[in-house]
Amino acid sequence: MKIRQLFDYDTWTYTYLVWDEATMEAAVIDSVLERVERDMQHIKELGLKVKYLLETHIHADHITGSGPMRKQTKGQIVVHKNSGSECADILAVEGDTFKLGHQEINVLHTPGHTNNDITYLIEGAAFTGDTLMVRDCGRTDFQLGSNENLFHSLTEKLFTLPEETMVFPAHDYKGFSQSTIGEEKQFNSRVGSGKSFQDFSTAMDNLNLPNPKRIDVAVPGNLQCGNLDD
Amino acid sequence: MKIRQLFDYDTWTYTYLVWDEATMEAAVIDSVLERVERDMQHIKELGLKVKYLLETHIHADHITGSGPMRKQTKGQIVVHKNSGSECADILAVEGDTFKLGHQEINVLHTPGHTNNDITYLIEGAAFTGDTLMVRDCGRTDFQLGSNENLFHSLTEKLFTLPEETMVFPAHDYKGFSQSTIGEEKQFNSRVGSGKSFQDFSTAMDNLNLPNPKRIDVAVPGNLQCGNLDD
Repeated sequence: MKIRQLFDYDTWTYTYLVWDEATMEAAVIDSVLERVERDMQHIKELGLKVKYLLETHIHADHITGSGPMRKQTKGQIVVHKNSGSECADILAVEGDTFKLGHQEINVLHTPGHTNNDITYLIEGAAFTGDTLMVRDCGRTDFQLGSNENLFHSLTEKLFTLPEETMVFPAHDYKGFSQSTIGEEKQFNSRVGSGKSFQDFSTAMDNLNLPNPKRIDVAVPGNLQCGNLDD
Repeated sequence: MKIRQLFDYDTWTYTYLVWDEATMEAAVIDSVLERVERDMQHIKELGLKVKYLLETHIHADHITGSGPMRKQTKGQIVVHKNSGSECADILAVEGDTFKLGHQEINVLHTPGHTNNDITYLIEGAAFTGDTLMVRDCGRTDFQLGSNENLFHSLTEKLFTLPEETMVFPAHDYKGFSQSTIGEEKQFNSRVGSGKSFQDFSTAMDNLNLPNPKRIDVAVPGNLQCGNLDD
């Protein structure tokens, strides 16, 4: 399996191209509307056959490019069932699997940042969205976020994966690009080294972050799969 | 071999940690002074034993963190002989090799952006500095840059490497993180698909880029290995 990480400087979002080298079947994870042209050019140059357009969740900070990409590829849009999306092709739930050439994509439901977070597990790599970020995790204060759910997703689900599992987040704000489950179990600032739920919850309740600038546009835009003209 | 890519948002610089898993001996490539604390923390958490602090060239846009990192590790600073650096431990030339645990670091002199560019080849990965960037290359209009030298370095040296060689640049301005030699031979906007030297040279002479904001501070700072207080 090959992975290519792409970055959107405006919203600090990582988009991933993941493909099976034998068949060139590919998945795009968390595309960004403003980067569709760049990404489609890259997909063309790499010779990828896009089969899936995966969303880790309904984002609040940027609008997905999945709708426009679906018009230019054979990609099927996948989001979690809890999103209530009416534009997705597949409403996924825990345990679903998709074939990508000889690789398998496994769906883990890892809510807490929202109620519809998915971690996609592909061949030893976990695309963790805003659930697990490098030394950090997503916020829990909107979109049906929940400290309880996030703590459970992190410590009871993701941290039971093999330690060498590579972690690829949906965002980074400090210049990190990836991590491993083993590192995060030890060094994650929110839940590493066996921090208690109480410590985690108190810290999360005191982040005092401003709302994402574009939340009022991004969430409805994502529920349209980025097809703003439709 | 393991590679971890780190990013400096202020100067769009990639720093790399490269290590041999068996011995944990590590090299840091192109550190950034303002990110030394972040990177040293990461090095500590990963359990790396820094042996080399490699510079792909004397940078004009940021100051290296190699001097401060040398004070905190056993790392030896490596720059190309043409730099005239008096603070480096090793002045490298074409063909030099260094051992990193069971891995070998090979020095290719790839001038053109400056007169002292090195591409470090480590186990199928080329750390190409400002010589080769994703779909692009470095500018040639200061620091003894040369269209002739850069064209030669790209087309006669780097493009003779195996096509699957991974390319890790020192900068990116569009959100790309890596490439391969095969891709760049075909799709590089400056020299891909057999562009002539004349086309390349005309394009490079008409970039009309402003000088890097910090060039007057960065170049002398790098010739002191970032030890600004010494």
